[in-house]
Amino acid sequence: MNRTLAVMKGHGTENDFVVLPDLDAVISMSPSMVRALCDRRAGIGADGVLRVTRTALATEPDVQAQAGVAEYFMDYHNADGSIAETCGNGLRVFGRYLEQTGLADPGAGVTVATRGGPRALSFDGEHVTAEVGPATVRPERPRVSAEGLAGEYDSLALDLPNPHVVVELATVSDLAALRLAEPPRVVPGLPEGQNVEFVVRTGPGRLRMRVHERGSGETRSCGSGICAAVAAMAGPDAGSAGRQRWLVEVPGGQCQVWWNAAGAMMLSGPAVLVASLELSPQWLALHR
Amino acid sequence: MNRTLAVMKGHGTENDFVVLPDLDAVISMSPSMVRALCDRRAGIGADGVLRVTRTALATEPDVQAQAGVAEYFMDYHNADGSIAETCGNGLRVFGRYLEQTGLADPGAGVTVATRGGPRALSFDGEHVTAEVGPATVRPERPRVSAEGLAGEYDSLALDLPNPHVVVELATVSDLAALRLAEPPRVVPGLPEGQNVEFVVRTGPGRLRMRVHERGSGETRSCGSGICAAVAAMAGPDAGSAGRQRWLVEVPGGQCQVWWNAAGAMMLSGPAVLVASLELSPQWLALHR
Repeated sequence: MNRTLAVMKGHGTENDFVVLPDLDAVISMSPSMVRALCDRRAGIGADGVLRVTRTALATEPDVQAQAGVAEYFMDYHNADGSIAETCGNGLRVFGRYLEQTGLADPGAGVTVATRGGPRALSFDGEHVTAEVGPATVRPERPRVSAEGLAGEYDSLALDLPNPHVVVELATVSDLAALRLAEPPRVVPGLPEGQNVEFVVRTGPGRLRMRVHERGSGETRSCGSGICAAVAAMAGPDAGSAGRQRWLVEVPGGQCQVWWNAAGAMMLSGPAVLVASLELSPQWLALHR
Repeated sequence: MNRTLAVMKGHGTENDFVVLPDLDAVISMSPSMVRALCDRRAGIGADGVLRVTRTALATEPDVQAQAGVAEYFMDYHNADGSIAETCGNGLRVFGRYLEQTGLADPGAGVTVATRGGPRALSFDGEHVTAEVGPATVRPERPRVSAEGLAGEYDSLALDLPNPHVVVELATVSDLAALRLAEPPRVVPGLPEGQNVEFVVRTGPGRLRMRVHERGSGETRSCGSGICAAVAAMAGPDAGSAGRQRWLVEVPGGQCQVWWNAAGAMMLSGPAVLVASLELSPQWLALHR
């Protein structure tokens, strides 16, 4: 049978995704299919899969309950086949897909359903702004060390809602000297594991950051990590205090971050649809 | 302008390529465009680009001279933007493309032009067989050491025609213990640099191999390296002596290797077209 599968590939600050349109919710996403799609040599290659479907057709009650406010559901799958609540860079790419395919009006913005609740997206030329959610400081204060870094550092632990540990370094040279091929040592580690952000202040309201993600290693960008870094550097009262926009540079590009009036962190940055793809019958037969 | 660019992605034992059809030779492949296409996060992602064009339209005289025997030219570009003579796994994927698009008759096989001279391809179901060329033993006998390997090892250096250094290890545990994140130490190194193959005999006519490629690091497979490994293990007289088929396992799959009557090494293995792609106007505008 000559069946094919049409998808897109996109990225936000080089955090990349396979966007899989399935408006009628007929595709069952097995972990093995997700892994095959995300395989960078034998598949398309991506950090995750964003299935686009109608919220009303979602099987998860907490998602289906969002159908009144969000027509489309971002069904997010990590490259390893596991499921995640949401993803800051993924939200921007998902929004770009809705905009480019006419499913969202760029002037009006759009609210999308996620496993973490509904998220508002807005469009401004090359940039998409996503509501990532509130940052919550955790009680833990782990000590962190890593290859290329002398000694142990204090950190701040936050939930966005996924767990982050943020470490401030003194200089961009310290940041560049860091080697993240092996995970940083976090003592005590958070029970769920953690993404670790290393951050340097490079000016007023300006940060540079590198990140090690649990399960993925060092990545070019992490949307919730960018928000966690700003929350840690701005201090716990920043949400209610200022409306300053922070600029965060990551290896894959740069984003702006601020708090909205409701205390949610907002992440704005580029979102690029790279290509539309049609998987071959030969490949689909191999990965059935 | 809403221009797009249609390409395919394919792989042979997980050595992956962007296949760029340009039969009328109207696309100029700048190194920066090759790097952008091969970028695994911000582009499509691949180990190299195989431009498909008519041999008669090639600008290089040594290639154009092959027009009488080979209608199509495999214009091979490494992911870093440099040009290479040929590529064993790339030849199979190139052949699959010609077969799937009707440019080659699978029953008759096809000869394609490369910068290293014409190469014959034949088709057998899931496998494509490519003529890689003769193996030539070099005078150097470097000593090789690597992380995870105790002591220094003797090696055999061969040209295929790119330079290889082959090291035999005793057991599959030795092979598994090898860490190739850093390049192996080769003393003295070959003047042009080298790909280093670590090989274990796992049975009669059967090898398991890992490879570190110059410029790329450890890869899942290397076609000429697979041939180099067989040539080194079979001994220098193998070309004239036996017609035995060797089976070589690499991390990305397995291939068969033998010598044809003319003394050329033949490489047979899978070649999969993963997907057809259309690059978006947005991406093309960013990478113009």
